Amino acid sequence: MAKVKKQPRPKALPPKGFRDYFGEDVRARKSMLDAIAAVYHQYGFEALESAAVETVEALGKFLPDVDRPNEGVFAWQEDDGKEGGDWLALRYDLTAPLARVFAQHRNDLPTPYRRFAMGPVWRNEKPGPGRFRQFYQCDADTVGSASMAADAEICAMLADTLETVGIPRGDYIIRVNNRKVLNGVLEVMGLDAGEARDAVLRTIDKFDKVGEAGVRELLGKGRLDASGAYIDGVGLTGDQAEPVLAFLTSKAAGTAATLANLRAAVGESPVGLEGVTELQTIADLLSAQGYGPDQIEIDPSVVRGLGYYTGPVYEAELTFEILDEKGRKRQFGSVAGGGRYDDLVKRFTGQEVPATGVSIGVDRLLAALEAKGRGASKSAGPVVVTVMDRDRMADYQIMVAELRQAGIRAEVYLGNPKNFGNQLKYADKRASPVAVIEGGNEHENGVVQIKDLILGAKIAENATLEEWKSLPSQYEVPRSELVSKVREIIALHEAG
Amino acid sequence: MAKVKKQPRPKALPPKGFRDYFGEDVRARKSMLDAIAAVYHQYGFEALESAAVETVEALGKFLPDVDRPNEGVFAWQEDDGKEGGDWLALRYDLTAPLARVFAQHRNDLPTPYRRFAMGPVWRNEKPGPGRFRQFYQCDADTVGSASMAADAEICAMLADTLETVGIPRGDYIIRVNNRKVLNGVLEVMGLDAGEARDAVLRTIDKFDKVGEAGVRELLGKGRLDASGAYIDGVGLTGDQAEPVLAFLTSKAAGTAATLANLRAAVGESPVGLEGVTELQTIADLLSAQGYGPDQIEIDPSVVRGLGYYTGPVYEAELTFEILDEKGRKRQFGSVAGGGRYDDLVKRFTGQEVPATGVSIGVDRLLAALEAKGRGASKSAGPVVVTVMDRDRMADYQIMVAELRQAGIRAEVYLGNPKNFGNQLKYADKRASPVAVIEGGNEHENGVVQIKDLILGAKIAENATLEEWKSLPSQYEVPRSELVSKVREIIALHEAG
Repeated sequence: MAKVKKQPRPKALPPKGFRDYFGEDVRARKSMLDAIAAVYHQYGFEALESAAVETVEALGKFLPDVDRPNEGVFAWQEDDGKEGGDWLALRYDLTAPLARVFAQHRNDLPTPYRRFAMGPVWRNEKPGPGRFRQFYQCDADTVGSASMAADAEICAMLADTLETVGIPRGDYIIRVNNRKVLNGVLEVMGLDAGEARDAVLRTIDKFDKVGEAGVRELLGKGRLDASGAYIDGVGLTGDQAEPVLAFLTSKAAGTAATLANLRAAVGESPVGLEGVTELQTIADLLSAQGYGPDQIEIDPSVVRGLGYYTGPVYEAELTFEILDEKGRKRQFGSVAGGGRYDDLVKRFTGQEVPATGVSIGVDRLLAALEAKGRGASKSAGPVVVTVMDRDRMADYQIMVAELRQAGIRAEVYLGNPKNFGNQLKYADKRASPVAVIEGGNEHENGVVQIKDLILGAKIAENATLEEWKSLPSQYEVPRSELVSKVREIIALHEAG
Repeated sequence: MAKVKKQPRPKALPPKGFRDYFGEDVRARKSMLDAIAAVYHQYGFEALESAAVETVEALGKFLPDVDRPNEGVFAWQEDDGKEGGDWLALRYDLTAPLARVFAQHRNDLPTPYRRFAMGPVWRNEKPGPGRFRQFYQCDADTVGSASMAADAEICAMLADTLETVGIPRGDYIIRVNNRKVLNGVLEVMGLDAGEARDAVLRTIDKFDKVGEAGVRELLGKGRLDASGAYIDGVGLTGDQAEPVLAFLTSKAAGTAATLANLRAAVGESPVGLEGVTELQTIADLLSAQGYGPDQIEIDPSVVRGLGYYTGPVYEAELTFEILDEKGRKRQFGSVAGGGRYDDLVKRFTGQEVPATGVSIGVDRLLAALEAKGRGASKSAGPVVVTVMDRDRMADYQIMVAELRQAGIRAEVYLGNPKNFGNQLKYADKRASPVAVIEGGNEHENGVVQIKDLILGAKIAENATLEEWKSLPSQYEVPRSELVSKVREIIALHEAG
């Protein structure tokens, strides 16, 4: 061997904010992604998988956090031997790459282009408990359609998707708003551009957290937040702030009443009226298809942080309560959101291309199902064929081959076979349903011992002596009946 | 709108060496990954999904290209406000993260730990035609088993996997060698460490490309390669090089004869003899399980470039010929490889942990199936419900909802409906089997027009006038029969 200089040992840890997913967690996510993809596909969307890496130039400055438009991504410069290499970055969402792909391939792709994409995205943010810097998104977008039917369809598909993955009607609500309505309100206020407008938008986005009174303070002088820090306000007078609050609180009992309130809030603003009409169209389409206001509703308090939305915006919220880390009840909150963004492709081509789409936060949705006890059922571990005689490894391998051919997950114990107890501990750790034992005596007599580990564990836990006697958990069967006996035991547990 | 400063438009291109995958390509890869995962799972392996990002420290210097141990990864430094942030990098394979994960979680994981992983890896290499900087790997490893049964099992599983994804017996060969045998040969030569040894190893790795004569030249003075460049040799005399060549060419007809040749080549070297015995064990186990030398064979010419292998190494090669870009016949070559690496976890813990595993190059395997015409069958496009009357969008949406509920992929045309020809062109581009048409007249009469686009295309291509008359490709049916008629047409094409 080559001589290696002594170096300090590397730490066996992932970078801060990254984590590993094991066995059942990987399986649960995969099965959710498959279910979502099936709905998207059924709706006519086509898969797209772009690379994790894009040029910073192509990603643009539409970063998730509008307060820090240059931060939030993992980026590095290509080494081109000189100093002029491209800056590359990990994608922070799946929408920016879609805009690049559509601009690049627009002459070959069908228009409208309906695509779905699923995969990890990366955010260079300060990690915290439960906040990770890599997480999955699962998007569907329609590029090249200005029709409100495209937005309505995305909302309907989102409802279908949530119900498909196990969130029943009543446990979620998809709330729909329109940026144009808000722009109309700002127009009426004389705030249709500039820093004050952006500050008002950011404040509105906090409505969910701080409520009407909180927004009123933040639009005015400012507010002491829960942590005791003082947050500066936008500096509007009470009168100036009123139209914003009227807008935010214009949700009424029933779609027609809400739309009437919004119509009043936008006054004569053309863009505002256009927005209200668009919401009306969406509401009519969804209602005609049988989606009720308990599934999808117009709600003017939905703003969504991203700067690039230009029309309808929507957000799916789970309405059931869960217990947080401290055992307090709280609503689970948002698991998906999206909207119309008509300017993203224009950055590349100069031509406006209307587009609308949704992104599902898959990891949050999984956490919600887990919290509700509706997570995927655990799959069984493998049958473990133990090694009693290490010279007969080939015999044991033939046993697992037979089991696998019969569709039964199985493996030979491959650790050091010396200590038999370790082999059973291993089987236990793997959640094995069955262990197979064939020592020298069994081999001579042409039999195998088959241990029902699930029943064994149950008996060990709480059986009476009588039950113990009447419920044997180990069987001696002829070698030729290995597969059928194992199958019988597994079927028994699957049934019960 | 806010005023935006005029900026040059970004280029709508992915970074060099990265690419996008669309629709059917995504589906084909996913279905291959699912098939491979099913085999791995059946063998008792558990899924692991680590993040794309690791610390450079954890990844270590076992980079794929031993000639450039510090290069080959995409890396950047964390911004910690000072200058001391961690260096992070995209993983270049799935083995280095596994070593980190096992070291980190070794007290909680079962031992042996059988895990599989699939996902993209990244290499910061010069891109070229067909050479991408992001590609998929699909690995299975057994960590914590020193048994040759673990290596034999991986080889058997690799054979099963290749046959499962569509490479029949006879179209692939898994070749097995052992690093210890090679080390024995080098020991006999007095080259058991240092630069000369590394140079000999690198040379041996080229045996596949340059053959016996080429290796002889490269071990000696050097060689003019195909491009006309002169490659310096290692500088051994002919006598010195002889044992290496004897080793490389020791494959004989039949495993027993090959092993006898190897035994002769390693002479009295203890490590060499250990290696031959290990190969014998693997061969015996596989033969007992019914794997023939037409599936898995001992072949001393397999070296594999990675510096970290310590025992058995294996490689799967596809043996059929394909036509390359220039229409020349060539063998497809390697699609998977792996081996035993007993030192990777030790970097973290100081304790040696035996491990062995394989990596399948999924993109290459897909390309091979494609080249053989055995790629996944194309899935049908969606039924397209056209828009004849844009005020009745809700009616069209209800039609697609009915079709989807019947399990039929369907969508409403969401582009500008003004030009009906564009709607049919769109359906064509989507490979739609059926278009549905309901104009004002149809609506009044309670009927819909259903156009069989597949038959329509066939007729348009090559029908005689008689056929044209006898094979109508458009049907008028009552609105209530929409779903059943569409289903009938699709079933007809699926059957034929």
